[in-house]
Formats: sequence, structure tokens, C-alpha cells
Amino acid sequence: MKFITFAVGGTTRLGVLQGDAVVPVIGDIQAIIAGGPAALAEIEAQVAAGSAAAVPLADVDVLAPIERPLRNIFCVGKNYYDHAIEFHSSGFDASAGKDAQPEFPIIFTKASTTVAAPGSVIPGHLDPTASVDYEGELAVVIGKGGRGIAKAKAMEHVFGYTIVNDVTSRTLQNRHRQWFIGKNLDGFCPMGPTLVTADEVPDVGALQLVTAVNGEVRQNASVSQLIFDIPTIIETISATMTLEPGDIIATGTCAGVGIGFDPPRFLQAGDAVAVTIEPIGVLENSVG
Amino acid sequence: MKFITFAVGGTTRLGVLQGDAVVPVIGDIQAIIAGGPAALAEIEAQVAAGSAAAVPLADVDVLAPIERPLRNIFCVGKNYYDHAIEFHSSGFDASAGKDAQPEFPIIFTKASTTVAAPGSVIPGHLDPTASVDYEGELAVVIGKGGRGIAKAKAMEHVFGYTIVNDVTSRTLQNRHRQWFIGKNLDGFCPMGPTLVTADEVPDVGALQLVTAVNGEVRQNASVSQLIFDIPTIIETISATMTLEPGDIIATGTCAGVGIGFDPPRFLQAGDAVAVTIEPIGVLENSVG
Repeated sequence: MKFITFAVGGTTRLGVLQGDAVVPVIGDIQAIIAGGPAALAEIEAQVAAGSAAAVPLADVDVLAPIERPLRNIFCVGKNYYDHAIEFHSSGFDASAGKDAQPEFPIIFTKASTTVAAPGSVIPGHLDPTASVDYEGELAVVIGKGGRGIAKAKAMEHVFGYTIVNDVTSRTLQNRHRQWFIGKNLDGFCPMGPTLVTADEVPDVGALQLVTAVNGEVRQNASVSQLIFDIPTIIETISATMTLEPGDIIATGTCAGVGIGFDPPRFLQAGDAVAVTIEPIGVLENSVG
Repeated sequence: MKFITFAVGGTTRLGVLQGDAVVPVIGDIQAIIAGGPAALAEIEAQVAAGSAAAVPLADVDVLAPIERPLRNIFCVGKNYYDHAIEFHSSGFDASAGKDAQPEFPIIFTKASTTVAAPGSVIPGHLDPTASVDYEGELAVVIGKGGRGIAKAKAMEHVFGYTIVNDVTSRTLQNRHRQWFIGKNLDGFCPMGPTLVTADEVPDVGALQLVTAVNGEVRQNASVSQLIFDIPTIIETISATMTLEPGDIIATGTCAGVGIGFDPPRFLQAGDAVAVTIEPIGVLENSVG
């Protein structure tokens, strides 16, 4: 299923996307994620019953699939080899270590105030250093929680997938050493457009991540190129802390961000950034 | 007022501490924080009405004053000069920069799964690298939220204060570059024992922070020694992101942590760590 959170007539609703139509369902996305297979089956039954009239996708305002995560989004840094090299060489990398490629996963967080809807205007004007950059990423949503999750069992804990754009102020990221400040400007985490359940993605490594700025393709990589794959990330985080249903893990960005260019190509007001990962869809935002 | 969250007969309750007695009140701490002066006045009225019988403090199990923060706790790194020096010299500091003392505040986060009660056993056994260290800290709880809060207005946004012990695995902190993994083992953020409202702390710089391990004083500093004081921290974080009621900011630890010694003195099973800041009280935990 492809879950979609949307606004219609000022009310926030949950729906299931079928082709170009949204079938409204009754339920809370966090409760469905926590509820496991029984909760999913209940939603499937609602869709099959056809009790709610489908709405054309074009007629609704799509929101982030999880508008207010229950805690900060986990993010993995420098998790594609080519991006680790470009970031290391950019002069903006305050994460010490002589090697470009990390030996262990690098984790930081983005708070709920960063989450923004597909189509929203990224408030680039909030960055006093005018160094706003995009990072298209595949995000994993945890279903069954746990601590000490072994790699071999990790995929059983994945509820589904969405897209995030881990928008970053490069100068703030560098200046404050730990990346939190540079990664947490309001609205700097567009998410969506859908939350696709894991059963629809039999081979996550086969997904292709493409980011375009004003139509020019900047990032284009296979998720199979992750340095630390999803089972490794889940094993690493859960080794010492309990993952919970609804936790979101942004798995890292690939080469082609603005600071990969010389001189850097930062986002400007009026730019349009589109991150595409099928079957999740296209997460497109403008910059303001 | 000194708010205290406690368990009695298996139920979690909110109370107000008066001397050695807890006066139970009806209310939710997050709602009270968000509710501003009117909500506080309502609690004061309950206490004055004396409708609930006071319970001796010794008869209740004290819990963290905010058991489940609405998002990750904000933490400030290297925010006392002497500690910045000891950390920089320890070999465990993966936060780049040639200078020991940060030029800009360093911010990272601790998730809700780290929050633990006063008296709880810190699960040191979860650290596979056996490098568990204490960090006694004053924590600020935000009342009125906002973005772009100027230093001069910042203290108006403080609801109150509590104590946290920012327990850390030093080897994991170093290994993963960004500090999240080393700071987020389950139970690694004891908090409490009380949440003291701002009106009871006319001069926060006058507070004294003392940490003892097995009765031996290890940390002893005045909050006035913060490199970035509370108004500066609030101004810095809120410059680009919206602070919300109930947000918790741990302001940083002073010199005397385990890695300040050569060789490092890591916490061992059976150790008792007590962080004292009056009038908040003593936050004491053992290590398991």
C-alpha cells in the first residue's frame, strides 16, 4: 500500500493511493505502524469495502506522510562512497577523521519542526549564511521496535519507505561542529509524497535515487551503493538503543550535492528541487 | 514551585514538593508548561486548597519530571572552558577543530529512550566498549516557544530547571564521529529529581553543580562559568528553528568527567553517581 496524508477542506486525512486517486481511510498512521499486520489488514479491508469515495490526487494537498514524528528523525551521514569523498573534499566537513569514508555509521538527528510537506516552500531565507544545500535520501520507517536487532532480522522491522530531502545549511553545519544546527532550520526536511509499505519494495537495493534542481539531474545513484546498508544501520542503532514503531531513518545522500561542485552551487530563492524514488514518487519543493 | 513526577501504587502522578512532602496535583506537566502563568496559577490553587493529602517523599518512587519529552533533548557540548580543555586533550574528541574551546555552540541530541528516573540503574552493561562516563548538567525547560528569540528576551522563555546526567559511552562517541550513538544508549539520561520553576531561581549563574562518584567529588563548578550562557544558547538554537514548550536543553558539563583523568576513570558496575544542584536537589543513580 501507498499511504498518503493529505488535507482537503482544511482537514488532515489519511488515504491510500491507487493510481491517480486517493481512497480516504479512517485511521492514525502512527497507530497503524504500531499495530502491525492486523492494523494493515484493517486498512486493506476499508479500501476493499469502498465505503469512502476516491478523490483525484490532483484535488488534494499532499502533506508529509508522518507530519509530527514521535521523536527526532535519525539521519545517516556520509553513507554513499562518492558523496563521502565530495563532502570530505569540500572544506565543509567538520566531522573529524582523516579518512573520507567512515569506518562506523555516522548518526545525527532532525527535529519535528523540520518536517515539511511535498510542495512546500523550503525557507532558505532562514539561513543567514546563504549556503542552503539539498540531499535527496531514501528514508526507512520502523514498524516493530526493538533493541539488539540482528542484521539478518532487521528487514522484519521495516514498516515502509518514504523520501526525505535533508536540506542543510553548509556553513552552519561546519561552524557548529556537530551537525544539528545546520540540519535543523524550520522546514528543512520535506518528506513524502507517500509512505510505501515494505511488501511493495521486494529489493530496496534496486531503488534508484534521482535529485534534480530546476530540471537538471544532480544526484543519480542506486540504493545498493549505500556504504552501510539498511540492515547494518538498524543493527548499529538498535545495538544500544531501542528503536520504536514510527521511528524514521534517513539513510544518507549520494554524490551530486551543491558542495560537490567547485564553486559550490547553493540553492537560491525560486529554485525547484525534485527528489524521485519510485515507487514512492516525486518529492518536489521550491526554495524561498 | 518544585514539580515532581512520581509513582505510587503503580500509578504515575504529578505533585508539588513542599519540604519533605509531596502534594499530589491533577494536571499534565506538558500541558502545564504549555499553559503558561494561568496553568501555574491553577496548580497553585490546587495546592492551596489542600484537597489532596500530602505524601511523605520517602514513600514515593520519584520519576523523571518529563518522562517522555515530545522530541529529543537538546544538549550543548564543550560548554565549560575547563571541560573543553580536558575533553580536547583526552583523545576521545572527534569533533574537529584545532581549538579546544568552541567558537560557536555545539548542539546534539538525546532521544526519549535515554530518559531515566532518579534512583534508576544506568545500564552500563549496554556499552560494548566499557567506556561509560558521567556528565552532570543543568537542564533548562522551555516554556513559551518561539523562533528568533533575542538574548535579552530569552529568560522569559524559560519555564524552569532540572538536572540531567548526560551519560556517555566515550568510545562510541569517538568512533561514530557525530556524538549521537555514544550519547543515546537506553537509560543514559537520568533526569530530576524535581523541575523547579524559573521564579525560584532568580540568578541561574549562582547555581553550583557538583557531581560525586561513590561520594568522591569529581565535578564542582558554578553555572556562571558556562562558555555560552543560557540566553546565548536559546538565541542560537531559536535563530533558525522554533523552540517549543517542553523542549529540554542540557547546558553542558564542567571539568572532572572520567576522561579528564589519566588513565580515564570510567564508571563500573556498582558505582553510585550523584549530581547535585540546589534547589533542584540530588540526582543519584547507580551503575549496572
